[in-house]
Amino acid sequence: MIHIGVDYYPEHWPRELWPDDIAKMKAAGVTTVRIAEFTWGLLEPREGEFDFEWLDDIVKQLGDAGLEIILGTPTNCAPLWMYRDYPDTLQCEKDGNPTFTGIRGHRCYESPRFRKYAARIIGEMTKRYAHDPHVIAWQIDNEPDANHCNCPECTAKFRSFLQAKYKSLDAMNKAWGTDVWSGEITRWQDITTPKGPLYSPNWLNPGYLLDYERFAAQSTADYVRWQYTLLRQAVPETVPITTNACFCGHTIDFHQTFAPLDIVSYDNYPEVRIPEDEEAVYSTAPELDLMRGVKQKNFWIVEQLSGPKGCWGPMSETTRPGMIEGYGLQDIAHGADMVLQFRWRSAARGAEMYWHGLIDQSNVPGRRFAEFEKLCARVKELDWLEGTAPRAEVAVLYGPEQLEAFGIQTQSPGLDYRPQLRAWHEAFASYGVNVDVIAEDAPLDRYRVVVVPCHFITNAKTVANINAFVKAGGTAIITNRSGVKDAANGCVMQALPGAFSEVCGVTVSEYDPIGERTVKVRMGECELAGSLWADLLTPTTAETVAVYDSEFYKDTPAVTRNAYGSGHAYYVGVCGKRALRRAVAKAALETADVPHTELPRGVQLTTRESDTVKARFLFNENETAQTFTVGGERITLQPFEMRIDRI
Amino acid sequence: MIHIGVDYYPEHWPRELWPDDIAKMKAAGVTTVRIAEFTWGLLEPREGEFDFEWLDDIVKQLGDAGLEIILGTPTNCAPLWMYRDYPDTLQCEKDGNPTFTGIRGHRCYESPRFRKYAARIIGEMTKRYAHDPHVIAWQIDNEPDANHCNCPECTAKFRSFLQAKYKSLDAMNKAWGTDVWSGEITRWQDITTPKGPLYSPNWLNPGYLLDYERFAAQSTADYVRWQYTLLRQAVPETVPITTNACFCGHTIDFHQTFAPLDIVSYDNYPEVRIPEDEEAVYSTAPELDLMRGVKQKNFWIVEQLSGPKGCWGPMSETTRPGMIEGYGLQDIAHGADMVLQFRWRSAARGAEMYWHGLIDQSNVPGRRFAEFEKLCARVKELDWLEGTAPRAEVAVLYGPEQLEAFGIQTQSPGLDYRPQLRAWHEAFASYGVNVDVIAEDAPLDRYRVVVVPCHFITNAKTVANINAFVKAGGTAIITNRSGVKDAANGCVMQALPGAFSEVCGVTVSEYDPIGERTVKVRMGECELAGSLWADLLTPTTAETVAVYDSEFYKDTPAVTRNAYGSGHAYYVGVCGKRALRRAVAKAALETADVPHTELPRGVQLTTRESDTVKARFLFNENETAQTFTVGGERITLQPFEMRIDRI
Amino acid sequence: MIHIGVDYYPEHWPRELWPDDIAKMKAAGVTTVRIAEFTWGLLEPREGEFDFEWLDDIVKQLGDAGLEIILGTPTNCAPLWMYRDYPDTLQCEKDGNPTFTGIRGHRCYESPRFRKYAARIIGEMTKRYAHDPHVIAWQIDNEPDANHCNCPECTAKFRSFLQAKYKSLDAMNKAWGTDVWSGEITRWQDITTPKGPLYSPNWLNPGYLLDYERFAAQSTADYVRWQYTLLRQAVPETVPITTNACFCGHTIDFHQTFAPLDIVSYDNYPEVRIPEDEEAVYSTAPELDLMRGVKQKNFWIVEQLSGPKGCWGPMSETTRPGMIEGYGLQDIAHGADMVLQFRWRSAARGAEMYWHGLIDQSNVPGRRFAEFEKLCARVKELDWLEGTAPRAEVAVLYGPEQLEAFGIQTQSPGLDYRPQLRAWHEAFASYGVNVDVIAEDAPLDRYRVVVVPCHFITNAKTVANINAFVKAGGTAIITNRSGVKDAANGCVMQALPGAFSEVCGVTVSEYDPIGERTVKVRMGECELAGSLWADLLTPTTAETVAVYDSEFYKDTPAVTRNAYGSGHAYYVGVCGKRALRRAVAKAALETADVPHTELPRGVQLTTRESDTVKARFLFNENETAQTFTVGGERITLQPFEMRIDRI
Repeated sequence: MIHIGVDYYPEHWPRELWPDDIAKMKAAGVTTVRIAEFTWGLLEPREGEFDFEWLDDIVKQLGDAGLEIILGTPTNCAPLWMYRDYPDTLQCEKDGNPTFTGIRGHRCYESPRFRKYAARIIGEMTKRYAHDPHVIAWQIDNEPDANHCNCPECTAKFRSFLQAKYKSLDAMNKAWGTDVWSGEITRWQDITTPKGPLYSPNWLNPGYLLDYERFAAQSTADYVRWQYTLLRQAVPETVPITTNACFCGHTIDFHQTFAPLDIVSYDNYPEVRIPEDEEAVYSTAPELDLMRGVKQKNFWIVEQLSGPKGCWGPMSETTRPGMIEGYGLQDIAHGADMVLQFRWRSAARGAEMYWHGLIDQSNVPGRRFAEFEKLCARVKELDWLEGTAPRAEVAVLYGPEQLEAFGIQTQSPGLDYRPQLRAWHEAFASYGVNVDVIAEDAPLDRYRVVVVPCHFITNAKTVANINAFVKAGGTAIITNRSGVKDAANGCVMQALPGAFSEVCGVTVSEYDPIGERTVKVRMGECELAGSLWADLLTPTTAETVAVYDSEFYKDTPAVTRNAYGSGHAYYVGVCGKRALRRAVAKAALETADVPHTELPRGVQLTTRESDTVKARFLFNENETAQTFTVGGERITLQPFEMRIDRI
Repeated sequence: MIHIGVDYYPEHWPRELWPDDIAKMKAAGVTTVRIAEFTWGLLEPREGEFDFEWLDDIVKQLGDAGLEIILGTPTNCAPLWMYRDYPDTLQCEKDGNPTFTGIRGHRCYESPRFRKYAARIIGEMTKRYAHDPHVIAWQIDNEPDANHCNCPECTAKFRSFLQAKYKSLDAMNKAWGTDVWSGEITRWQDITTPKGPLYSPNWLNPGYLLDYERFAAQSTADYVRWQYTLLRQAVPETVPITTNACFCGHTIDFHQTFAPLDIVSYDNYPEVRIPEDEEAVYSTAPELDLMRGVKQKNFWIVEQLSGPKGCWGPMSETTRPGMIEGYGLQDIAHGADMVLQFRWRSAARGAEMYWHGLIDQSNVPGRRFAEFEKLCARVKELDWLEGTAPRAEVAVLYGPEQLEAFGIQTQSPGLDYRPQLRAWHEAFASYGVNVDVIAEDAPLDRYRVVVVPCHFITNAKTVANINAFVKAGGTAIITNRSGVKDAANGCVMQALPGAFSEVCGVTVSEYDPIGERTVKVRMGECELAGSLWADLLTPTTAETVAVYDSEFYKDTPAVTRNAYGSGHAYYVGVCGKRALRRAVAKAALETADVPHTELPRGVQLTTRESDTVKARFLFNENETAQTFTVGGERITLQPFEMRIDRI
Repeated sequence: MIHIGVDYYPEHWPRELWPDDIAKMKAAGVTTVRIAEFTWGLLEPREGEFDFEWLDDIVKQLGDAGLEIILGTPTNCAPLWMYRDYPDTLQCEKDGNPTFTGIRGHRCYESPRFRKYAARIIGEMTKRYAHDPHVIAWQIDNEPDANHCNCPECTAKFRSFLQAKYKSLDAMNKAWGTDVWSGEITRWQDITTPKGPLYSPNWLNPGYLLDYERFAAQSTADYVRWQYTLLRQAVPETVPITTNACFCGHTIDFHQTFAPLDIVSYDNYPEVRIPEDEEAVYSTAPELDLMRGVKQKNFWIVEQLSGPKGCWGPMSETTRPGMIEGYGLQDIAHGADMVLQFRWRSAARGAEMYWHGLIDQSNVPGRRFAEFEKLCARVKELDWLEGTAPRAEVAVLYGPEQLEAFGIQTQSPGLDYRPQLRAWHEAFASYGVNVDVIAEDAPLDRYRVVVVPCHFITNAKTVANINAFVKAGGTAIITNRSGVKDAANGCVMQALPGAFSEVCGVTVSEYDPIGERTVKVRMGECELAGSLWADLLTPTTAETVAVYDSEFYKDTPAVTRNAYGSGHAYYVGVCGKRALRRAVAKAALETADVPHTELPRGVQLTTRESDTVKARFLFNENETAQTFTVGGERITLQPFEMRIDRI
């Protein structure tokens, strides 16, 4: 069964509205409702005084209506009295002072006192609802981010993290290279979290900063695991526990955070307008495939775009016709077994009132709600997808350390890790093949093509994995800025791509960080282009696939291919524009003998399958209708139309 | 009598210059001089030690020369010794710490100690000059802004303000909707002013923020009223007391602040170069009409542009030939009975030396001074304007809460309240009709057209006023983002334009916050355009005046007109470009049967009248000469030329 | 002998690499190596514990290889234990709090405790190496900047500086004009350094700010002199002591700082890509000529661009082919007798790893190193330059107070002192003449043309010097914004160019700060253009050289020339575009009868000479080859090619 539903905030509305809201949900076809993840202040208005009457009521009303409930632990926002009475429960800013309150997410994950109070409110919730048959899942906190708190407790935890990792100061100093600028640390207590509002991270030691990001990720993962343990003790095994992930300023390590949890959930907010720039990579399909890849199984969308975005800046434009239905089905096409729209109705009060729901504050259902009704109806017809999941022959490696390391040191203006990963995903997806986005240490044997974009921080295990994959007949694509760094975020002392030089049969003699400048590239007869970065390549055993056609390195290799064992490894020295990326992707698909399809830009062909059934999804992520041929059939898709075929 | 003169800072210059300065003023035709508003440090060099000798001297010299004096209370800048010895007299910043000194305006309006010292220096001044026959008016402080101090005193005052307003925490929590994100406030002492340098206001509760802005406005108004009371006790009834208003980062509530004062004063700094963008709305005429509207009577300009602007950024270009004369007369055309140029001579020292006066530091009178002499001569001929004032049939509503609420939550990139108000003012002014800019609760019965731009925060009284106005035969124009919010800055739970739906005969089914994107609009045969915002409209009783001609809502209404009682209400769902605004304005003028004139862009036709005399002002606010026909007469105006006819 | 070499950081690398590095250096032709300037943490890992073993070793290895050593005092970076145990050794930020550690340059120059520890480590170094025959020079600290620390010690020193300068508060208040905005200072203790992160300097008193910059410059000069004295006592007279200067956020006063030192050193980082904008002035030749001008003798380059720049932002593009050789020789052409490339090998760890050296972290010498080898070979052939230096007939005046004063008050958007100085330098250099950039109080009698760009802060001595120079037959060019200010950064009370009016025979009746707007200028038959600033001129005795050809001052003088004594003074009222600047420069060269040459843009012709030998340098600072005729010879230079002829 595919769950379809909404995020609902009964506490924001007069109780008189609840029955009508629930009736409308039922009529629309909603199956599932998420509630309660921000309600601590209501549930414990004064220290130790609890008021669950209203929550009992709405849980009962939803349950009575046959709706599934996902309950959120309300720990993202502690009540104001806690922050005022116990400032040690507050995160501290880059200047070391407690953050100013008034919004959300202020809690310090590591604060013992915060954890004590959080455990109590969670206990009060599970006491009441752990065995409610309508509560089908629990969500931990809300959109946890990597812990960047600078309080004394977190500082101490960071020191302990480093002590546990390095054992000795000598080892740590050596790893970080603190002999640059007399940065030697001779006493553990001299270490702090990275502070100082006046300096950009570019000024600080990159080894120290990457370890700090690792600590920040681990601290949040610990916090989530801690809540999971509390919940798991109270909640039946059959009730899954999740949390809702997102990309943000301090993104969590998805793999580490979700490791103990039962299912991955994601908050998906695609663009409301398709960019006019032909080079723009705009789909959130890479993120959907990444979420599926975290556990290599299906996942949930617990927040999905429902209207104009706003609040943390001016409002965006509204969703185009077809988007709500189309984007919801796109989630499913990529392996989502649940889609909850954020939110039922736009808030009438509070800072988030312009992050629009399906229904406006007027409570008059309109065009967007009508689309949601269509989506519900479509989803209802998809029972036959039960047990299916996307299966891919192409994988793209994702590593949270790459994300962080590129954030710590910008390589060239405009060059960043996630955009490169997204661009390579799109290059393959544009040929109508399923793509997995998987952890760097995931097994590769099920794939025929593996893309390794900007694999900056390198470790021997991943290199060995990739070498073995290629040796066994696989096709790998490895791009510039791979093999650059060791685990300590220091540069390796060998010709780039370092540990990948062997499999790629090429070395980088030097590089040109060209930023927004365009460099011409010639691949066979094709005039293509790249930008952002240009490696100057010296093939050892590789053949040349494409050459630069401008700059002082005109006519030297830009892309190479190396036969290695039974397989091949492409090295891509330049950040290609879309046509170049697609040319390389096509060459790789042909090398690996993966069937593929020519599709108009923005049209997506994916599949879900089980051993008994297969579904084909054709989605037009464009603002204009598209006509094309697939499998001999002439197909026209309206803007954002999703066609689903059982094949 | 129209007063003409200068702001003069004798304390900045060697005393030897004073007689020559005064002689030059007299020769030029100056009638009035403002002095002393920043001189506390000189008047009280050490605590309790007063030195008025120099001020006695200049007051005497000016008086002896027959010049009128406006005396400023010097409270904008307390002496440095006060800030050093009594830090509680300093404003506190967003981080809670006292502001760093060194510039101006540091005083905390609410500090009891500051008020004690301020009362004493004001007392010393009134003791000496209250009955000086040459002192024709007093100015309170300088350019007061809304109180954004974060000191303990102001924090306590803010709490008291909320307690007085809401009585109970429950009522306040409900108004603000603090159940969003567990923001419930359960103890008055937990409330602070909005702090935190790291967060934008977009993150904070909008109800809380709007109440804070109300407090900030009231606090400043209280401060001004407090000084007024002190002055009024000492100064004869016949001597008016004012303060000088301006738009700034934290703009005061003009109506509230000026309520107790005798006359409105304004600091007018128009552009020095006319923008080349045809869409630019550049005249300060809307502000002049607003200042007249504050008390619905004539007002004073106590600071007027005299040369290049500078100091808080690089210098601007210099004033074009004709500007000083033309802009001064434009003030008068809009109801100013006094024009003081800022300043007599550019400062030779201090941070403001590049905010240029009429004469440069060289003390060699040049082109700008010669223009001022012409202005004086023109003004001298305008005695017959005595008792005249502009009378308008068109009014635009202005509300300080709209200004603040748009500042708290940007609606769409580029959409803001004051620009929209200015744009609608210009649309009507471009037809040569007088326009009043009036308070939202002002009586409307004297008008035939009332424009209600972006009336965001809505109250029943204003709605009733407007409904009654239309019912009685008036023509109203109500624009998008009207009727959106209740008094607590929460969204109303009804279809927009909410309380205006009845008079407009239309509802908004949804909206598209289009930002800088242009949307086509068709009005009759005309191809027009809008941007920033697009309401999708469902007329109930209204007729369609214009439709969208692009986007997914092509051919649906963009502008409607509703017959209501004996009058009509236009609803304008889109932020029109200039041509669209003017088309709607023209339609409204025709609906309301208001005579109007076609004029070149930038040419302004306004009138002043009494029961016995009427003056017509024709002003060319362009850098090029303009030729046009008015009343059958072919007229050419040179750049910035003002023609004044007694008709 | 011209020294050629590298900056080397043996402490960053395994000791096993040292012998190979040294062998490579020798093979390449390196003569000189700078080491040790950031190694305090290694040398004194714990308070009072010293470890010089490693430094002894590398000094010995380098010496044994016959390489010259420059030793840096390691005081830029104190060890972390010092900052942690003694926070009074840390600089304080604009908010008064100690700076956060983690990077470099944190030490407070004025901290007595810091000086105590610094003296000790310097003593330990000199004890060991003062008499090492291979140590040919010492470098003090690293890139010292003007002291902007806000700690109590520096605040007290700033007060003392003011007390010493003004003696009385009255004199200081008068100089600064504190009567503006009640800024009177009545007690010395009320003075602080300029603080407050929320305010731009534009808000603060310009007299106060300029004195603060003077203090900041003097404080750093004192610190450098203090180290010089320590070193001089220990180091033989024959061993020169220097420091490495650069332009930065708080640039030192080069003349004052280098006064006690034996030689000037500079860190030279030219552009890696020649800007495409034809108006761009991109060469660092003006800075080279300035460094030579500081002592009016040859100088050293101790850091020279070797590859992509990075770390404090994204990486730049890489150096184009020819740049490393060409730029190194350009240093020599302008009077450098040493060129050290920064750095031998890019760091593998630490925040500076992307500021690239000659060899990448791979330690595989590539294209850039090969270029360096060519440079070494070229330099080796230049022994005959011994004793030669550039001799110039054209000088440009440089004043650190102008730099600071323009930083304190931006005059017009885009108008700044250093760019104007650079632009005038380029105008003359483009005619193949040597140009000196000299102190404002330097003797002028050796020159035939003296350019005085934006001589804002004026003093009688300089004016007298210039007047005497012109009177004696010299040709001066004085530009807009000259003669504006007195020594207290207040505006002079006379018609501009103030004290220069006499020699220029012209006064400024008013000015138009036109920013980026372009104004047309007509000079003879030539249609030229300017921007940024336009003075409206009234010649008294001058003749008109060029007139404005647009704006309301069309046909009035823009450039004038005045016969004064036996010489001539040009006044340039507008900031000319390149063609206009060159037209004026050519006119001046002709007036002064200085031989000159037409060269393509970017081609530079300079000379070094002694009484016995003369070298001609022809450098093509372009990315394209250039062909031109010099002295009847047809010459083609490849991109960045330097041709050196003995003539």
